[in-house]
Amino acid sequence: MERIFEIDPWKLVTHSLDPGNKRLQESLTSIGNEYMGMRGMFEEKYSGDTHHGIYIGGVWYPDKTRVGWWKNGYPEYFGKVINAVDFVSVDLQINGHSVDLAKDEFSDFTLELDMQRGLLTRSFVVKVGQAQVLIKSERFVSAAQKELYANRLQFKNLSDQAVELKVTSVIDANVINEDANYDEQFWNVLNKQAQPEELFLTAQTIPNDFGTPRFTVAMAAQHQTSLQAQAQKVTDQAVSGIWQEQLAAGAQAVFEKRVLVTTSRDYEQQAEIETAAHKLATAQAATSFDDLLAQHAAVWHQRWEKSDVVISGNAESQQGIRFNLFQLFSTYYGSDSRLNIGPKGFTGEKYGGATYWDTEAFAVPFYLGAAPAKVSRNLLQYRHNQLSGAYHNAQQQGLAGALFPMVTFNGIECHNEWEITFEEIHRNGTIAYAIYNYTRYTGDRSYVQNDGFDVLVGIARFWADRVHYSKRQGQYMIHGVTGPNEYENNVNNNWYTNTLAKWCLEYTAQIAQEVSAQKLADLELTSAELAHWQEIAQQMYLPFDEKLGIFVQHDTFLDKDLTPVADLPQDQLPLNQHWSWDHILRSPYIKQADVLQGIYYFIDRFTPEEKRRNFDFYEPLTVHESSLSAATHAVLAADLHKEEKAFEMYSRTARLDLDNYNNDTEDGLHITSMTGSWLAIVQGFAGMRVKDDQLQLAPFVPQEWTGYQFRLNFRGRLLEVVVDKNGTKLSLLQGEPLEVLVNDQLVEVK
Amino acid sequence: MERIFEIDPWKLVTHSLDPGNKRLQESLTSIGNEYMGMRGMFEEKYSGDTHHGIYIGGVWYPDKTRVGWWKNGYPEYFGKVINAVDFVSVDLQINGHSVDLAKDEFSDFTLELDMQRGLLTRSFVVKVGQAQVLIKSERFVSAAQKELYANRLQFKNLSDQAVELKVTSVIDANVINEDANYDEQFWNVLNKQAQPEELFLTAQTIPNDFGTPRFTVAMAAQHQTSLQAQAQKVTDQAVSGIWQEQLAAGAQAVFEKRVLVTTSRDYEQQAEIETAAHKLATAQAATSFDDLLAQHAAVWHQRWEKSDVVISGNAESQQGIRFNLFQLFSTYYGSDSRLNIGPKGFTGEKYGGATYWDTEAFAVPFYLGAAPAKVSRNLLQYRHNQLSGAYHNAQQQGLAGALFPMVTFNGIECHNEWEITFEEIHRNGTIAYAIYNYTRYTGDRSYVQNDGFDVLVGIARFWADRVHYSKRQGQYMIHGVTGPNEYENNVNNNWYTNTLAKWCLEYTAQIAQEVSAQKLADLELTSAELAHWQEIAQQMYLPFDEKLGIFVQHDTFLDKDLTPVADLPQDQLPLNQHWSWDHILRSPYIKQADVLQGIYYFIDRFTPEEKRRNFDFYEPLTVHESSLSAATHAVLAADLHKEEKAFEMYSRTARLDLDNYNNDTEDGLHITSMTGSWLAIVQGFAGMRVKDDQLQLAPFVPQEWTGYQFRLNFRGRLLEVVVDKNGTKLSLLQGEPLEVLVNDQLVEVK
Repeated sequence: MERIFEIDPWKLVTHSLDPGNKRLQESLTSIGNEYMGMRGMFEEKYSGDTHHGIYIGGVWYPDKTRVGWWKNGYPEYFGKVINAVDFVSVDLQINGHSVDLAKDEFSDFTLELDMQRGLLTRSFVVKVGQAQVLIKSERFVSAAQKELYANRLQFKNLSDQAVELKVTSVIDANVINEDANYDEQFWNVLNKQAQPEELFLTAQTIPNDFGTPRFTVAMAAQHQTSLQAQAQKVTDQAVSGIWQEQLAAGAQAVFEKRVLVTTSRDYEQQAEIETAAHKLATAQAATSFDDLLAQHAAVWHQRWEKSDVVISGNAESQQGIRFNLFQLFSTYYGSDSRLNIGPKGFTGEKYGGATYWDTEAFAVPFYLGAAPAKVSRNLLQYRHNQLSGAYHNAQQQGLAGALFPMVTFNGIECHNEWEITFEEIHRNGTIAYAIYNYTRYTGDRSYVQNDGFDVLVGIARFWADRVHYSKRQGQYMIHGVTGPNEYENNVNNNWYTNTLAKWCLEYTAQIAQEVSAQKLADLELTSAELAHWQEIAQQMYLPFDEKLGIFVQHDTFLDKDLTPVADLPQDQLPLNQHWSWDHILRSPYIKQADVLQGIYYFIDRFTPEEKRRNFDFYEPLTVHESSLSAATHAVLAADLHKEEKAFEMYSRTARLDLDNYNNDTEDGLHITSMTGSWLAIVQGFAGMRVKDDQLQLAPFVPQEWTGYQFRLNFRGRLLEVVVDKNGTKLSLLQGEPLEVLVNDQLVEVK
Repeated sequence: MERIFEIDPWKLVTHSLDPGNKRLQESLTSIGNEYMGMRGMFEEKYSGDTHHGIYIGGVWYPDKTRVGWWKNGYPEYFGKVINAVDFVSVDLQINGHSVDLAKDEFSDFTLELDMQRGLLTRSFVVKVGQAQVLIKSERFVSAAQKELYANRLQFKNLSDQAVELKVTSVIDANVINEDANYDEQFWNVLNKQAQPEELFLTAQTIPNDFGTPRFTVAMAAQHQTSLQAQAQKVTDQAVSGIWQEQLAAGAQAVFEKRVLVTTSRDYEQQAEIETAAHKLATAQAATSFDDLLAQHAAVWHQRWEKSDVVISGNAESQQGIRFNLFQLFSTYYGSDSRLNIGPKGFTGEKYGGATYWDTEAFAVPFYLGAAPAKVSRNLLQYRHNQLSGAYHNAQQQGLAGALFPMVTFNGIECHNEWEITFEEIHRNGTIAYAIYNYTRYTGDRSYVQNDGFDVLVGIARFWADRVHYSKRQGQYMIHGVTGPNEYENNVNNNWYTNTLAKWCLEYTAQIAQEVSAQKLADLELTSAELAHWQEIAQQMYLPFDEKLGIFVQHDTFLDKDLTPVADLPQDQLPLNQHWSWDHILRSPYIKQADVLQGIYYFIDRFTPEEKRRNFDFYEPLTVHESSLSAATHAVLAADLHKEEKAFEMYSRTARLDLDNYNNDTEDGLHITSMTGSWLAIVQGFAGMRVKDDQLQLAPFVPQEWTGYQFRLNFRGRLLEVVVDKNGTKLSLLQGEPLEVLVNDQLVEVK
């Protein structure tokens, strides 16, 4: 654990710069606007340990798959997040010396991320010889105009002598990735121009062997400044402009850099991409930095209006939940159905790939409540866009139907561990579950009956081919899978996977009753196929232990040595840092909810006693070594009135990055698990459910808090839910009146 | 299937050169003398597809482990067979043109591997413009003097004009490996000298990051020739000598290259290594090529005397078994207990590593009968030499005792697939079994009571820690293993593994009764520990199906879809070329004997009915996609009087490489599986067993043959066994008279 920012309800603030935690600071102060984003590295030179990372959504590169031993069916390439052409760097010289906080003497340091407005600000007084200059930097990636990055630098000469200030602004394609596999660059420069009015550079990703599209980006940088333009430079891979001026004692100066970034994702030809960047740059030129910032902040204001969570009596919790909401919205707010939510968002490049099942399992349930329905619908649409890739993936394994990938940018699987790539197929169930979840929450049946049905049928056909019939048991089985608990691999009849497969077949067959005849004909879906699905579903084997009254994680789980986690020597934890992989695999210890994930998905279908028995059996064996574990357990614990356990689980998720619990936040934030704290509060503490078109709540206030309130987007309404020791108050902020079941009592909210 | 050599009882002969099968030709004409060996590439330039490979036993390089995703416990490096400094190449110029059979016009081509003498001969007439020259090459790696490689080239000018003949002999350290992971070189040249009398080069393997020893090799090349020495050259990485002469019409010339190779494996200091090479070179200089060849052939003669197998009525079978014996003896004949039997011997560099469990499972049983007892004892001693590495491997997995590696050069595991490295631990049982097997066959108890006991105790301690107690079942279990059938991974309670583990504990406890008190004290072996082993062994879970009356391959095997191989569409075979890895894993198809391997090991402990039920259940599910599968099945089929099946299995192993059944012999020969044909004949057709110090035979003659005879080394005797339609005749060629049980009747052999 490491906490480097002060507790504040709306801000991350620090007054010190810790070189040993520079990367952690950079991860936490990342900003983004879905379209692009960046880590919180400094604009000016920093010669200490730093990770300069700028990323553009949907821009990636396919790297040759690297394995020790090839297995049939492995994908050809691994899609990597790549570092964009650097448009952020600005060199600041004072009397000929480049400011470098890793080496220079400085004071009055403040670094602040304003989450309410989405603004990153930094100020400090640097001493260069006798010169002392106050430097303030403000930057944001506009939520109002996706292509716009803006940075304002202000200078004040605090010395009693004049200082020579020289500012060099660059666009530089000479960048590499941090990722260990890489030492190569990704960008070929196509065009570069440097004029006093505009620095301009166009670059394209280098050719690849896999026939995936190359990406072109154009960047137009304009500068508004009180300084004198001095020169412009064009080098092999970069363009730069130099501004200079003598700053008299006490004098001030300002330098604004505004970069407009356009890409081949939105425009076809290089000329179009470039024209768009020029035009956008020209269009914003007359607007002041403050006005641009105000437009940006207004969008953030609307988002907070729709989804702020207020916690009373615990400032740390308050900061935690707002930080999670801020970073989630910076990563994704549903404006582009070609984008998704990468595990590190725009905050790092670890893991690669854009899309994991995390999105459907943990992000969709969050966005359903925290944002307008179209945001979630775009997440669903993303999978429909990639349906042909999912058919390709199934075919790679010799199977019918569609298998959505574990890791992907374009729908084609790019992960390469056989036990994951080929076997962690439960992901396919969650893709279907998200459609069900969206439909249940929003009441909008138009997706499930159209594009959603295409997806469901592809998934159902996959399951129908992937099961086998065991003559001995007279049941359908699924052998050779990895469940959500990745601390076991290649198991047979994982209860969670079998349950989801059975449900997918049933749900798809059920939806088939309401889609158009044309749709059925287009998909060549016959009553015989539907009947076969029903037969499989009815005869699906779901391991259950009569004696313990629990669902069994997989066939031989109960033969293990079932010593609970609490009885392990504490110095063995976390297991993934202390045990050999085989030791982990044959142990009973669970990385993240597995049987309990299935119970969470269908929480209303189990009796309290069923839920309790399974929770009491599995949770003590769970090490929660995935950031995705805590939320599910928090909701279930709350459901079972285990309020203390629910709060413990909440705490594991709410400040995971802010307090660097896993000691790896320097690589980037755990974006997809950030939904966990919201889910723990709304589905957990407040007991929010939707059943038979009915919104339900059953709130309690954790001991550690005096109360909390949150806003919920539900079927065109915006509701505010206030929970404190006196009870629950609901108000309708937008939309038509609505009946809500609160603690089993119908309440009309007007 | 591809057959490029003619059928001949003692030779591989061809009169054509097929450029498309050049690598296959090279693999099949490999020669070696345990100490070093080489593929059958040409000495002179060959610009077509070729694999120039020369290997020195025990000389290797540790390559950084490469994986897609790291798992805790993976080894740091992967030991690779490396290509030695090239001492074979000789450039042949005729009238200024380098002979190159990939491009030149030639006739009268003959290539012949004489297995009786261990000599590779080639001759052809090459046309260069008007010139026609007959060139003949003979080469061998001396079985009489391990450091000696000899090559005689003879020339005859068939033209009616004089030709200019120029021969350039080199020693060249500029070599790389074929292996895809590599693009780097392995050799730093330490010393190089080129004089008319001797070319000399010393090289050392480049530094590595893993602290493993670097190897130094010195090579002294002497040349005996009728040609005139012209010049010598020293370049960065090579030394060469040039000889030249005008050959009148009809004239002949001879050029001999003899290279003496010494290494740091036998001498410590560079100076000693070099002195040894010089001395050896000088010592042999006065001996003619024919005499050197005669000395070499005499050793081969002795080997054949001890172990020739004669097959009547089937020339293909005859050639097959002799080829296998020839290549096995070229790879290993027990002269150095620091060496072992790599999967490709000296015939290729695929797979890396020197030692697999193949040695104990398939090579020891062969050498026990086909060679003097010390050969097998040296194979056992090799493991004792590496016992500390085995302790290291167990520790890497957090386990007690010793785990012998899957793949190694020095005892340290260097393979990196978790399902193999960590889980294919049955190998440890076979290491112990080989000690038992040696002791049973030879009657020599001195190994098992001393060094062998150290090995047994390390192995027993590993198993005792690796099992776990299942409270639910009240038995000890072994979860998370891969059996010999590598087409299933990470299974629970593999019958073969559990059976071997149980047996290891029992056998070690039994041997503990006969070792010295000092030995027990040295190993700190207490009666409590012995009692604990016995308890585990008694309560070991061995899956058995009452209904089918079979041992169950692992816990859930019988839940699979058990469609036999015969019912699969033939175009799906071999599975490893047609199915995705997960499909293979969840299928019931068996790569090589698994339950049946265990029954083979303890063939006398099961009733014929038990053996038959298991064979009839498992063999139809077996795809035999490992070269190690056929021998076990041949022996068991013969045991069950399934003579046709036994012969089918024999045929799969006897000419596997000669007929390139698996279509991969171009990468090198399947050395460790070459024992299979001998085992099929001796243990299979002839029913050879040793039980209670009694040699037993129960021979039959396969339909396809008229008879066969083989020689058996048994407890100081050399027996000849002749089997034909009239019965079995035994003769004693060496040693004391002996009683043998033939078809359950005691026969005295004098």
